[in-house]
Amino acid sequence: MQNAPQLKTFFSECQARVEAALEQALPPAEQPPARLHQAMRYAVLGSGKRVRPTLAYAGAQALGIPKGRVDAGAVAIELIHGYSLVHDDLPAMDDDDLRRGRPSCHKAFDEATAILAGDALQTLAFATLAQEPIDEIDDSIRVAMVAALARAAGSIGMAGGQALDLESEGTELDLVMLENIHIHKTGALIRASVQMASLACPDLEPARADALDHYAKCIGLAFQIQDDLLDVEGETDVIGKQSGADVVHAKATYPSLMGIAPAHEAANDLVNDALRSLECFDDGADPLRWIAQYIVSRDR
Amino acid sequence: MQNAPQLKTFFSECQARVEAALEQALPPAEQPPARLHQAMRYAVLGSGKRVRPTLAYAGAQALGIPKGRVDAGAVAIELIHGYSLVHDDLPAMDDDDLRRGRPSCHKAFDEATAILAGDALQTLAFATLAQEPIDEIDDSIRVAMVAALARAAGSIGMAGGQALDLESEGTELDLVMLENIHIHKTGALIRASVQMASLACPDLEPARADALDHYAKCIGLAFQIQDDLLDVEGETDVIGKQSGADVVHAKATYPSLMGIAPAHEAANDLVNDALRSLECFDDGADPLRWIAQYIVSRDR
Repeated sequence: MQNAPQLKTFFSECQARVEAALEQALPPAEQPPARLHQAMRYAVLGSGKRVRPTLAYAGAQALGIPKGRVDAGAVAIELIHGYSLVHDDLPAMDDDDLRRGRPSCHKAFDEATAILAGDALQTLAFATLAQEPIDEIDDSIRVAMVAALARAAGSIGMAGGQALDLESEGTELDLVMLENIHIHKTGALIRASVQMASLACPDLEPARADALDHYAKCIGLAFQIQDDLLDVEGETDVIGKQSGADVVHAKATYPSLMGIAPAHEAANDLVNDALRSLECFDDGADPLRWIAQYIVSRDR
Repeated sequence: MQNAPQLKTFFSECQARVEAALEQALPPAEQPPARLHQAMRYAVLGSGKRVRPTLAYAGAQALGIPKGRVDAGAVAIELIHGYSLVHDDLPAMDDDDLRRGRPSCHKAFDEATAILAGDALQTLAFATLAQEPIDEIDDSIRVAMVAALARAAGSIGMAGGQALDLESEGTELDLVMLENIHIHKTGALIRASVQMASLACPDLEPARADALDHYAKCIGLAFQIQDDLLDVEGETDVIGKQSGADVVHAKATYPSLMGIAPAHEAANDLVNDALRSLECFDDGADPLRWIAQYIVSRDR
């Protein structure tokens, strides 16, 4: 990828920034109930690409607002993402023993602790939006952020997508149904990541907010297609979870429904659509452009 | 109980009010993902005493503010309570097949759906505070309500109490440790219920807010002691869950640590402390007084 070094630098900066903020937001490991707090920290710290926070910061850069205005939003989104992974991995859900190359939370701790850690991470996400100091963010913006995050995470967003996914097991999915699952399961939170920047930008023209939202919709779906492709093509030691897991569970994926080459093409088309949506932005939007290109070129 | 008829009327009014508001807040049963939405509605509607919403409305009456100002807070609290019951009943947690005289959510649906329904109910609680129209409530109050609810529900509140409870299984608990569990596990959300009224009251004197908070702390603990007593003394068909469950699981309870008569006495002392805390309030606080008396006289 052409801009890989610049993106790597941008990613590193955003990762360091959000990880410092997450470290602050999470209760100390020794604070009672210690086992719960250790599980919360285990689930969120020490691994993770921080794609969603990086998207929020890249959105801020595109809009010319300081990163400080999206810190709380970036932390909240990553906490929701972390909670969803902990719960998705549970035996009653996807039953994954491995996550990001480490034992999943319920294997490293126990099932009850993992359920509670996920629950408490979700609560902490909303606490962060309400409590953390945010540069020049007034309460109406905080309320809008809570509403946007709740919409993205709830039964007609991420949790709903996971429910649709579970309902679909053992049934024949077509592409429309598969896309509907992914729009909710992974797409909603990716859109919310970019929305955190739009909401934090005073007097943002609706056309620019819409352009960013369209960008986020496109890359969200591209991200999922690439995930499916990586599952088919990747190696366990590179992607950090068991390769071929979707095949073993006989789940519908983009490659299984479209074929591998057309799935690559669909992901590329979506990324090009995302890039076109950014044409009204100056080079402040370059990190968003690099992220779009990265999504279809990443190998994990 | 002396004021039982008046409390019954007040409870009925509050139940009807919050149930109408919950019906509005919950997604329709037929809206996809339908199974998830049915599970969310099953967990929250059609049963439940609505003690917490009634406390919020009683707090509003004590402070002379319209019930409309605490509707969203009452709904949010009850959604959090509903989510916690669904997750607490899971096989990996308390493993209860029965809740309020009906199959618990994971028995009526399935474990994955119950996990997701609990997750989505928590999200909906915060969505409600951010989105529902609230009479004359400005955004700074909404933010304060989100912060209060998150504090009460999270790892140093209700979820933390449940974690402490799980950690304590198989260990010898003393009264201080047991009280610490209950202050968090059930007490925090009961305090938050009354706080919703205090937060919604403009220009509330700190002394009155503190008096209400002390009332809530006392009755929260009394409520739990009475719950323990009901588990020892009650019949399954009256209390709606398996009687003696705590004994079977060898869990420490107030009666097991103190004896039955001293546990009754402790609950009564707490209720008297709660009533003293209300001395600075006029008869608008009578519903709060009736609730305090009800807590130690209830049989379910």
